[in-house]
Amino acid sequence: MIEKYSIRTDLALEQKERFEADHVEIPGVIVEEEEDEEKEMKITTVRIETENGAKAMKKPVGTYITMEAPGLAVPDEDYHREIAETLAGYLKQFLTPRKKDSSVLVAGLGNRKVTPDALGPYVVDHLNISRHIVREYGKYAMGEEKVQMVSAIVPGVMGQTGMETVEIIKGIVKETRPDILVVIDALAARSSRRLNRTIQISDAGIHPGSGVGNHRCGITEATVGVPVIAIGVPTVVEAATIVNDAMENLIRAMESSETLKGAGLVLQGYHPAEKYELVKELTSPHLHGMFVTPKDIDETVKRISYTISEALNQLFSPGTCS
Amino acid sequence: MIEKYSIRTDLALEQKERFEADHVEIPGVIVEEEEDEEKEMKITTVRIETENGAKAMKKPVGTYITMEAPGLAVPDEDYHREIAETLAGYLKQFLTPRKKDSSVLVAGLGNRKVTPDALGPYVVDHLNISRHIVREYGKYAMGEEKVQMVSAIVPGVMGQTGMETVEIIKGIVKETRPDILVVIDALAARSSRRLNRTIQISDAGIHPGSGVGNHRCGITEATVGVPVIAIGVPTVVEAATIVNDAMENLIRAMESSETLKGAGLVLQGYHPAEKYELVKELTSPHLHGMFVTPKDIDETVKRISYTISEALNQLFSPGTCS
Amino acid sequence: MIEKYSIRTDLALEQKERFEADHVEIPGVIVEEEEDEEKEMKITTVRIETENGAKAMKKPVGTYITMEAPGLAVPDEDYHREIAETLAGYLKQFLTPRKKDSSVLVAGLGNRKVTPDALGPYVVDHLNISRHIVREYGKYAMGEEKVQMVSAIVPGVMGQTGMETVEIIKGIVKETRPDILVVIDALAARSSRRLNRTIQISDAGIHPGSGVGNHRCGITEATVGVPVIAIGVPTVVEAATIVNDAMENLIRAMESSETLKGAGLVLQGYHPAEKYELVKELTSPHLHGMFVTPKDIDETVKRISYTISEALNQLFSPGTCS
Amino acid sequence: MIEKYSIRTDLALEQKERFEADHVEIPGVIVEEEEDEEKEMKITTVRIETENGAKAMKKPVGTYITMEAPGLAVPDEDYHREIAETLAGYLKQFLTPRKKDSSVLVAGLGNRKVTPDALGPYVVDHLNISRHIVREYGKYAMGEEKVQMVSAIVPGVMGQTGMETVEIIKGIVKETRPDILVVIDALAARSSRRLNRTIQISDAGIHPGSGVGNHRCGITEATVGVPVIAIGVPTVVEAATIVNDAMENLIRAMESSETLKGAGLVLQGYHPAEKYELVKELTSPHLHGMFVTPKDIDETVKRISYTISEALNQLFSPGTCS
Repeated sequence: MIEKYSIRTDLALEQKERFEADHVEIPGVIVEEEEDEEKEMKITTVRIETENGAKAMKKPVGTYITMEAPGLAVPDEDYHREIAETLAGYLKQFLTPRKKDSSVLVAGLGNRKVTPDALGPYVVDHLNISRHIVREYGKYAMGEEKVQMVSAIVPGVMGQTGMETVEIIKGIVKETRPDILVVIDALAARSSRRLNRTIQISDAGIHPGSGVGNHRCGITEATVGVPVIAIGVPTVVEAATIVNDAMENLIRAMESSETLKGAGLVLQGYHPAEKYELVKELTSPHLHGMFVTPKDIDETVKRISYTISEALNQLFSPGTCS
Repeated sequence: MIEKYSIRTDLALEQKERFEADHVEIPGVIVEEEEDEEKEMKITTVRIETENGAKAMKKPVGTYITMEAPGLAVPDEDYHREIAETLAGYLKQFLTPRKKDSSVLVAGLGNRKVTPDALGPYVVDHLNISRHIVREYGKYAMGEEKVQMVSAIVPGVMGQTGMETVEIIKGIVKETRPDILVVIDALAARSSRRLNRTIQISDAGIHPGSGVGNHRCGITEATVGVPVIAIGVPTVVEAATIVNDAMENLIRAMESSETLKGAGLVLQGYHPAEKYELVKELTSPHLHGMFVTPKDIDETVKRISYTISEALNQLFSPGTCS
Repeated sequence: MIEKYSIRTDLALEQKERFEADHVEIPGVIVEEEEDEEKEMKITTVRIETENGAKAMKKPVGTYITMEAPGLAVPDEDYHREIAETLAGYLKQFLTPRKKDSSVLVAGLGNRKVTPDALGPYVVDHLNISRHIVREYGKYAMGEEKVQMVSAIVPGVMGQTGMETVEIIKGIVKETRPDILVVIDALAARSSRRLNRTIQISDAGIHPGSGVGNHRCGITEATVGVPVIAIGVPTVVEAATIVNDAMENLIRAMESSETLKGAGLVLQGYHPAEKYELVKELTSPHLHGMFVTPKDIDETVKRISYTISEALNQLFSPGTCS
Repeated sequence: MIEKYSIRTDLALEQKERFEADHVEIPGVIVEEEEDEEKEMKITTVRIETENGAKAMKKPVGTYITMEAPGLAVPDEDYHREIAETLAGYLKQFLTPRKKDSSVLVAGLGNRKVTPDALGPYVVDHLNISRHIVREYGKYAMGEEKVQMVSAIVPGVMGQTGMETVEIIKGIVKETRPDILVVIDALAARSSRRLNRTIQISDAGIHPGSGVGNHRCGITEATVGVPVIAIGVPTVVEAATIVNDAMENLIRAMESSETLKGAGLVLQGYHPAEKYELVKELTSPHLHGMFVTPKDIDETVKRISYTISEALNQLFSPGTCS
């Protein structure tokens, strides 16, 4: 693989796949796969159980569930309802066993004004917010016995606020004392075929710009003081990534070609660092900061955000209709 | 006056005018007026100095400066620049004498999705945010020696967040420790002629739904722990208000009419509570929750928010261009 | 009634009510009322059959169906589906008997950037557009035998385009030759209780600023060359109207009061023109161009526009899901 | 070059560069370059004078002026004013010599809801529209003697309207009879370094999806009946393009490498069709319909659209302020 570690992905699933390609087992990492043919979904659970596993995976210890549902990118209302139900089911696993009268704070991360980054804010737009009602009138005001107190915030991004997202959330958590924090964020994938058709749920929190490994900024139980469930959907692929993928494919293609086999083997023999330099030279410096995204991203992000908020509403305010 | 106290206004200036109409002096309240004919602005300063004055005015102790500038509602770029400069000047009075290296948090209150309420969020959209840059690279990164650290938040409204705005801001202030808080909010005026052409600056903080007097929710130095400067622009008049105004005018008109004088005097003699009941009966219950706003409100709010953010940028990041 | 003819309403229903208040029959105008208690809807059909009737009603000859459905302003998805079905049913009456393979052009009038005026553009946003698909692949591409060709345009308002809306639509109709034109527009009502809970359907076309009676601008079969069905929802009341209503109520209230009866009778005796002058004096000149609208107008307009597009989709592309 | 003709570009400049790389002169095509060092702009004029030239360039006969201004992508107000002036100057060349009292229709093509495609609609948002005022009050109402009648339309895209853009524009042109049509559109570039920093002006009209060469849809003097000036800015690069570019760079790099030279020469020797197949195999089928765009595209498109409308306002309504 050319410079496998330099390619950014926020999906534990894709991190794992890179090892598989090399037929390597990672100690401390357990992977389970499940296919739901009827719903056309594939569920992969990656459990990073040790610090060594975390190091190898470049992701913190925790459980990462990935739902791959090609229909997520398509405007089929019934199918989206099914996904919302499935998603609610998996989220529930992370919630039990919590006390009955719990309260949840949902944070919609990202920049509302940059479409592929607006997933989090859009999810919050459609949530059933109840904390202020329950506090004012008691939970019977919601017409349900089991209602939880839901509050939500769209903190914005650092360029808009001048503050680390974790500073804002930490302050609000301390002041309003929710039992759990759910963060929603748009992710970067490595493979364009995962764009807008994959949802990752994790109890490991969120690490903005996690490739950089800046743990100071992480939004985790350690930094904010309450358990954190992260829900993410890859909406972009970094432009450099697709060039890199094509390169890998070229090298593979060369190996099986009579006339090019020699060169293919030479390239294959390169040290990752050498390959990385090669790709960097081949790609335009103008690609930096560019991302790849589908033409219909505006509609797609809206649709998926609606599906996620439906799942959260089913989970936290089952009696009310959204 | 029919039920003067039941009419909502967020402008200290309008509160004061009600007393003037009755030729009443309010102890503990000092009023200064100033006219800038060249700039076509009228500046009124209301100083509420005692708790008795505060009680009479139904506004907390503090200084309220009101700039009335008819041109604010008109798309004249040069004039808006002048207003921005004047506004920056008055804001500076509230800031001195603070220490040199201060940091400011700007909170844009209100609901971005309800146009007349979106003033605060729009102002934040155009601010020069610098806190993260100064923290990362030092203030020389801004190319200026005197730059302040500016951070900003759009907290949303309770229906969107489930939290009191003051909870969110208090949490963020505790976590990020700004020296001063500036809050921007859209206000309700009593008179439609003040809509979108008046700016009120105050050091008394903001009292959401202040007519109700819910001090628990106030955003003041007492509740958030740092000095608060509030900037407000009236963008709506409650629908009931304009009916009330017409009633008052009618009663006055009757008194000066031969045939109606008797009835006018009878009505005039009513106790405020009686008049209040009368107006309530006359107006449709459907008016509740309705407001009066001009047709071009979308454009107007954008323009004024831009003027206010220009004033803040001049004040807090004078070297950078917006 | 004070100056009944000066009050603007775009609803034939409200025009008719003014006559009823005076117990006047209008020759050439037939009115039918129907109540659907189960669906909590009231349907009023006003048929203006003669030019004399049109003159009296200040509306062109034609049929005007008004659906009053209080639930329209409320976020209840099931109820909105019911209204959509009922609306589709009434629209169908205007369509029969047309030829099988007809094509329809839908025009969403109004200004997308002024919320209460954005109804038309929003409806078009959610339509199933099929003309280009049917033309490219035949109607079987839509998976339905009876599919109609639906095209749509959001022409904008004169301040944005410099053109009369009818010029734009006429040009497009001539070029693309639809069999029928459906126009959607936000209306002004006279009564605030009708805001956002009333739908008017008419085959008389639309007369922008119809109170002014500028027939040059009308969008009718006569001006565009194909039959026109207009769908309108009142989203604003002019500010002056609510003052006027309160005045009328006051005069009525005075008549039943011991002490004020005299004055009430005096006012009642005024000629409409005198009353009109009185109201004009009582209301602020700043009210001109102001309108009354509910706080939640952004959400409400979105919801109703969605209901109307669902009705149109059911009617014109029954097989596809929206 | 790998499959040079399969790569989409809407810039005549980039079409020409492909020939230059092969050191080929194109008969019937004249190219002039000009550098304005002070303004940091490069101006290239491509004149396609013969049908043979048009065939070779895959662009219709006409003049194409390309302004490359790196500062266009940067938020510097003064620089944008300079670009607006320069742009107005070049546009003027296409206008002379027309009659004094001319009228212009501006069409903002593209989809307002897909950010990189919203350039045209955004430009129209900021135009000074005057046709309706001049028609109502005469040109003196604009306070200027030389004012032109400006009208504008945002026609939407075929998926939204069901109509070809040219059908809509042709209908409006026939109905309102402007002397000239200006169309604004977002383009696809071949090179990511040209994104958002290049403006192309042409008198050859616009050919939506021009790579496909579907002349039926073209918006040209031939199809709409009046002269057409097209203004375009590349805001996207097709995802496949950047992979292709990297491939070309790789092949070049291989040739100058000891160990890879052989393979490089082999690849270089491939027929374009063979190379095209190779690239197609190397890139993911999921890249189809994907485009590359910078992270800050929302802000950038707004800024550039503002610059273009300023240029048009200077040109067509010089006395009024925008």
